[in-house]
Amino acid sequence: MERYDIAIIGTGPAGLEAAITGTIRNKKVLLVGSKNLSMKLTKAHEIQNYLGFPAVKGEDLAKAFQKHLDQLGIGITEERISAVYAMGDYYAMQAGEQMLEATTVILATGVVQGKPLPGEEENLGHGVSYCATCDAALVRGKRVAVVGYSAREEAEAAFLSEICPEVLYFPMYRDVNQLPEKVTVIPETVNEVRKQAGKMTIYTSENSYTAEAVFVLREAVAPGQLVPGLETEGAHVRVNRRMETNLPGCYACGDLTGTPYQYIKAAGEGNIAALSAVGYLDQKKHRE
Amino acid sequence: MERYDIAIIGTGPAGLEAAITGTIRNKKVLLVGSKNLSMKLTKAHEIQNYLGFPAVKGEDLAKAFQKHLDQLGIGITEERISAVYAMGDYYAMQAGEQMLEATTVILATGVVQGKPLPGEEENLGHGVSYCATCDAALVRGKRVAVVGYSAREEAEAAFLSEICPEVLYFPMYRDVNQLPEKVTVIPETVNEVRKQAGKMTIYTSENSYTAEAVFVLREAVAPGQLVPGLETEGAHVRVNRRMETNLPGCYACGDLTGTPYQYIKAAGEGNIAALSAVGYLDQKKHRE
Repeated sequence: MERYDIAIIGTGPAGLEAAITGTIRNKKVLLVGSKNLSMKLTKAHEIQNYLGFPAVKGEDLAKAFQKHLDQLGIGITEERISAVYAMGDYYAMQAGEQMLEATTVILATGVVQGKPLPGEEENLGHGVSYCATCDAALVRGKRVAVVGYSAREEAEAAFLSEICPEVLYFPMYRDVNQLPEKVTVIPETVNEVRKQAGKMTIYTSENSYTAEAVFVLREAVAPGQLVPGLETEGAHVRVNRRMETNLPGCYACGDLTGTPYQYIKAAGEGNIAALSAVGYLDQKKHRE
Repeated sequence: MERYDIAIIGTGPAGLEAAITGTIRNKKVLLVGSKNLSMKLTKAHEIQNYLGFPAVKGEDLAKAFQKHLDQLGIGITEERISAVYAMGDYYAMQAGEQMLEATTVILATGVVQGKPLPGEEENLGHGVSYCATCDAALVRGKRVAVVGYSAREEAEAAFLSEICPEVLYFPMYRDVNQLPEKVTVIPETVNEVRKQAGKMTIYTSENSYTAEAVFVLREAVAPGQLVPGLETEGAHVRVNRRMETNLPGCYACGDLTGTPYQYIKAAGEGNIAALSAVGYLDQKKHRE
């Protein structure tokens, strides 16, 4: 069976950058994921802080990424990897009924957003956003809603209140902290979000509310089921600054390693992960 | 005095990304560095793995970065910061004869290329200086020497020639530009600087020269010298994954934090540093 030097799982900015850097370093790279790249990326309305691309639409940034892959002749293998097993000398990946093999693995699967709310996915990028920093400019001066799944999201609501006249905050947890005056805390469970007459309607158990946009902010959910033995911290994989996990030859990068969930941060980490994998491969070769 | 929320020192990819992200997050940002951006970047022949820019010339990538700054109205303050002092509640930065203030500081000065000259560190402040603007008053009317590591330092030599009768200029690079008449360009490699009988002696491969003071001007100053109390590891600043240094409110990113020395890694870290600074500022505001 063909054994790759580096298998990269995920085609968001972290995985793509890892594939590019690994390829430039002459490694045999397997890039597994969606040919449509990251859905979070392609649906992003406008990204303001990917250095070099001022105020770029997600789909345009994705096109630039695709062009970069094309120029280096990097293809995407569309498989769903259901498990990654550390075999000692290499990794075996379950892809449907077949097994794939690679000496090193880079996990760039993004962060699992948990179960979406009814109406959430279909309105993503069109009324629903996952990132206050990214979409702040689009909602300036408007009434917005935030569905926050943990206290960490309160800072996002506070930030939005600096640029929006009214922020409705729906905590999906207990014990909400003090928030700025312009943030209205509504302690009701959100069941559904819908677009109606160009606005978003938020349905709770008790009432319904309207807003121009809804930010659905979750603290990610479990990743480590994919790789048995992988050390995790809540929703994230535990890595050091070299993007090394606890498993030798296994790296993680991008949203999967923790906040901030930002494209350029993810790409930077993909670069580090790839170069760490290259170093591991070179040392291994040297030992053999 | 005006106090900035975030002062960013350095205009390579790390500093620029930090400035962009800080600005988007509504913080009052001071970006200090060269208007020509990073020399390492602009002189780069071709960069292959900055995701989104396949096989791009350094100068073209720099142009894209500049356009991004322009679109967000971010200006660059051309000052040479010679010291950053932790004042408890804020940071004070020595910029020539003036002091600048900011609540948080992001260090993005790049990595000091090369070891100090023998005799350089022990005579610092006593015959050796890193800042012509700062120490101009001390050398007025005297014969001075400048060891310049890049063409950018020529402006410093020219400035010194306005107040000193004679300036010896030792370029540690090729292709020196036209300099004022009072500047004597000596194209010899400096090996050592020593204090002898109250004066400085500059030893080159071919000769020795004396001067009252020697200015050793490099693109970046060693981080430990720039920020008293900062924890370093060799040429690098010690940071965690949030780009926090040991000093609260002080962050570092880019080459300064260690290898790999890669543009996209630097930009990613600039993003993280800025968002860490934003979080610190918001918490601080909340406590007050």
